[in-house]
Amino acid sequence: MDQTMSADEFRRNGHAMIEWIASYYERVETLPVLSRVEPGETRELLPPDAPEQPDTFDEIMDDVDRIIMPGITHWQSPNFFGFFPANASPPSVLGDMLSSGLGVQGMLWATSPACTELETHVLDWIVDLLGLPAGFKSDTAGGGVIQDSASNATLCAVLTARERATEFQSNTKGCDGRLVAYTSAEAHSSIEKAVKIAGLGSDMLRLISVDENMAMSPEALETQIKEDVKSGLIPCFVCATVGTTSTLAIDPLKDIGRVCERYGIWLHVDAAHAGTAALCPEYRFIHDGLERADSYCFDPHKWMFTNFDCDCFYLRDRSLLIKTLSILPEYLRNQATESGAVIDYRDWHVPLGRRFRALKLWFVIRQYGAEGMRFQIRNHIQQAQEFSEWVSADNRFELTAPQSLNLVCFRHLGGDQANRDLMDSLNRSGELYLTHTSVQGRISLRFSIGQWLTRREHVEIAWRKICEAAEKL
Amino acid sequence: MDQTMSADEFRRNGHAMIEWIASYYERVETLPVLSRVEPGETRELLPPDAPEQPDTFDEIMDDVDRIIMPGITHWQSPNFFGFFPANASPPSVLGDMLSSGLGVQGMLWATSPACTELETHVLDWIVDLLGLPAGFKSDTAGGGVIQDSASNATLCAVLTARERATEFQSNTKGCDGRLVAYTSAEAHSSIEKAVKIAGLGSDMLRLISVDENMAMSPEALETQIKEDVKSGLIPCFVCATVGTTSTLAIDPLKDIGRVCERYGIWLHVDAAHAGTAALCPEYRFIHDGLERADSYCFDPHKWMFTNFDCDCFYLRDRSLLIKTLSILPEYLRNQATESGAVIDYRDWHVPLGRRFRALKLWFVIRQYGAEGMRFQIRNHIQQAQEFSEWVSADNRFELTAPQSLNLVCFRHLGGDQANRDLMDSLNRSGELYLTHTSVQGRISLRFSIGQWLTRREHVEIAWRKICEAAEKL
Repeated sequence: MDQTMSADEFRRNGHAMIEWIASYYERVETLPVLSRVEPGETRELLPPDAPEQPDTFDEIMDDVDRIIMPGITHWQSPNFFGFFPANASPPSVLGDMLSSGLGVQGMLWATSPACTELETHVLDWIVDLLGLPAGFKSDTAGGGVIQDSASNATLCAVLTARERATEFQSNTKGCDGRLVAYTSAEAHSSIEKAVKIAGLGSDMLRLISVDENMAMSPEALETQIKEDVKSGLIPCFVCATVGTTSTLAIDPLKDIGRVCERYGIWLHVDAAHAGTAALCPEYRFIHDGLERADSYCFDPHKWMFTNFDCDCFYLRDRSLLIKTLSILPEYLRNQATESGAVIDYRDWHVPLGRRFRALKLWFVIRQYGAEGMRFQIRNHIQQAQEFSEWVSADNRFELTAPQSLNLVCFRHLGGDQANRDLMDSLNRSGELYLTHTSVQGRISLRFSIGQWLTRREHVEIAWRKICEAAEKL
Repeated sequence: MDQTMSADEFRRNGHAMIEWIASYYERVETLPVLSRVEPGETRELLPPDAPEQPDTFDEIMDDVDRIIMPGITHWQSPNFFGFFPANASPPSVLGDMLSSGLGVQGMLWATSPACTELETHVLDWIVDLLGLPAGFKSDTAGGGVIQDSASNATLCAVLTARERATEFQSNTKGCDGRLVAYTSAEAHSSIEKAVKIAGLGSDMLRLISVDENMAMSPEALETQIKEDVKSGLIPCFVCATVGTTSTLAIDPLKDIGRVCERYGIWLHVDAAHAGTAALCPEYRFIHDGLERADSYCFDPHKWMFTNFDCDCFYLRDRSLLIKTLSILPEYLRNQATESGAVIDYRDWHVPLGRRFRALKLWFVIRQYGAEGMRFQIRNHIQQAQEFSEWVSADNRFELTAPQSLNLVCFRHLGGDQANRDLMDSLNRSGELYLTHTSVQGRISLRFSIGQWLTRREHVEIAWRKICEAAEKL
């Protein structure tokens, strides 16, 4: 009953899987983007019990086609314009295969030195690639680490801010209910989630008002901080956003940074989606003022061609994060750690275990080259600019926010229900997929361009489909 | 400058990668298990800057061999006996490849229904496979979800316990410094990490004493709880361990559960490594009393042949977890969610995004079959029993804890330094890898048997090498 797959069986099955994925790339464009199954439909096709006896690889793959595929929404489709992209480009898939095959744990330097050192190195590369502050590099007091998501990066930032503000007393004594955090009313829901998890309480998260561009008002921020200080509270954390989820609004980092500096508050910058634009020098303005930030994150797993999960999280003073999260039981002690000459990334995030995620990032950067990545990003942004011109020129539609990078927010002038109907009919058609948000209290459609397979023709066809659907309203 | 890899290029490179991984499986046994590089050695071989122009796949793979491989500690080697296993068996690697290729986001049911439904279904299968309480199944008030790690499962358990104890006030008002958590002195460091993160403070974590088998004393637990209640504190969370990291000790769940019930305290059971043993009916005793637990987790990414990351986290009342972590911004609203007919796993853990991890688990269970998995687990445990007999019969060595499942804790009678020297010389030899812990204040070696490629002969040779090294002390 030894079911261990031999290397040769793996060869045969692995080659078949490569064929399957390659052919998926070839046909994904023709598949309905949004899955059409009803709740429960996938489960109904699955047997109630796990198999006692082994199934063959071919049987499993038949079930992938028959049971799984109808329930897939095709994020890799060139016609996917929803949410933000979740790029899983071929080089990232290849790098991730290698990571799975090696199956190393990178919790300590000693448990696979290359896993730690490649990560440190590639994260240093990215500081230069994006023109981030030099103080985020590992040869300074700062440094970078791969997290699974911006949600967890933000959580780590909140925790470190909490500890710095309480001189590392919250970690031992617990939260005391006086710590306050700030972000804009347009910030991502993960900020509130992090503030709740960290024990600050969502009542202590101030949602600062935004200006006409949906960007945080530094004046309103300072007014609120002053009020809180006056009430005996302790402002400890500000999260500014570079590229909000709704409209890709960019908070004014310089002015927010000055306020944070004045009151000694931790500034975290969440550039989860938009950060990638800084690959191109002409878009580096999005990070103006970032040198004042204590921490920063962006997600290569969104727009930078790297499959999930891969968030790059940087700090100006790594020692504060390590002091916040470090725990050293006997079973993890080792000479390399004790020597102090190495990084042990287990102290840089919540989980202990970690896979070799730097490989996929390394594969992407090398296979595209910096120039190759810039080429794609510029295309996406140019396509968004064109799309926004089409919207502006059509008197049935209006832009609902200034077009920003690769996102266009717009609506049909027929009101909220018309926009919901428009979106539903387009998504049901299977020909494209887009999602919505709320801008100033009204439904707005979001057209996000950034999948690795998306070319100008897909955007053009999508616009034609949108116009056709609008005809039928 | 369009560097988008075509489907055909992916085919060619993908097949080469499959060959590379298959040949890795063939030769991993011959490689020195523990990497021999010095700190900084990997980085020295990497160019200071990211490439402007693309590199070819062949160039990247040459660098994998030249730069990365020397810095790898081979967790997939059959001679890896350190920590716990991190199995990345071939079917899990194939399932993970598919997950990477599809590149879907499973944050909402609607963003890929099959991703959510396969996960729910496979986690229900596992309830039966391991003989877990029926109340963990999705057709009850309970349910399961895949987390990245036991660390994050424990964090979610602590957070939910915190909210239940404070009637969901901590989430909004913040922690108030009166909540107390309990675990044994032998529990994993992630419990302390979670308690700190959740804002309870490590001073509020009671490390309950253990008996001669390193298992938590329910009497000591109750005494401590009584004392804390008397002091006006609020006991909210107990973590019992099924298979401690040091010695695989098993806390008495029945008695601990009774105490928790009496005082209305959340009981979380951490079976990260050992849970897999329950695949075999004869080892299900490890979970005796689990029906009283509020939450439970174990890691298929350790011993159940599934590559990292894959922790299965179960609750008896999923609504409490969802109420703790749920946040619903406009841009995530959709009909399926509003209908209440579907699960949205984003509310079951910290990150918002999530990859299709159920695929690899499904591939493993189907390719091995339940019988195939049991066969391996029984072999590992039998090998550990044999190994422990060899240790007991050798008057240079002694067992330092009762042999438990697939782990043997032992030491050379020559004292702490002799054991350190023994371990270092064995690990330096490259012929096997084992790690240490502290048992009752003295260094103990850990011999953990559980890699998918490990057969009896590897254990036998390892014991011979240990004896030879002991000769040279």
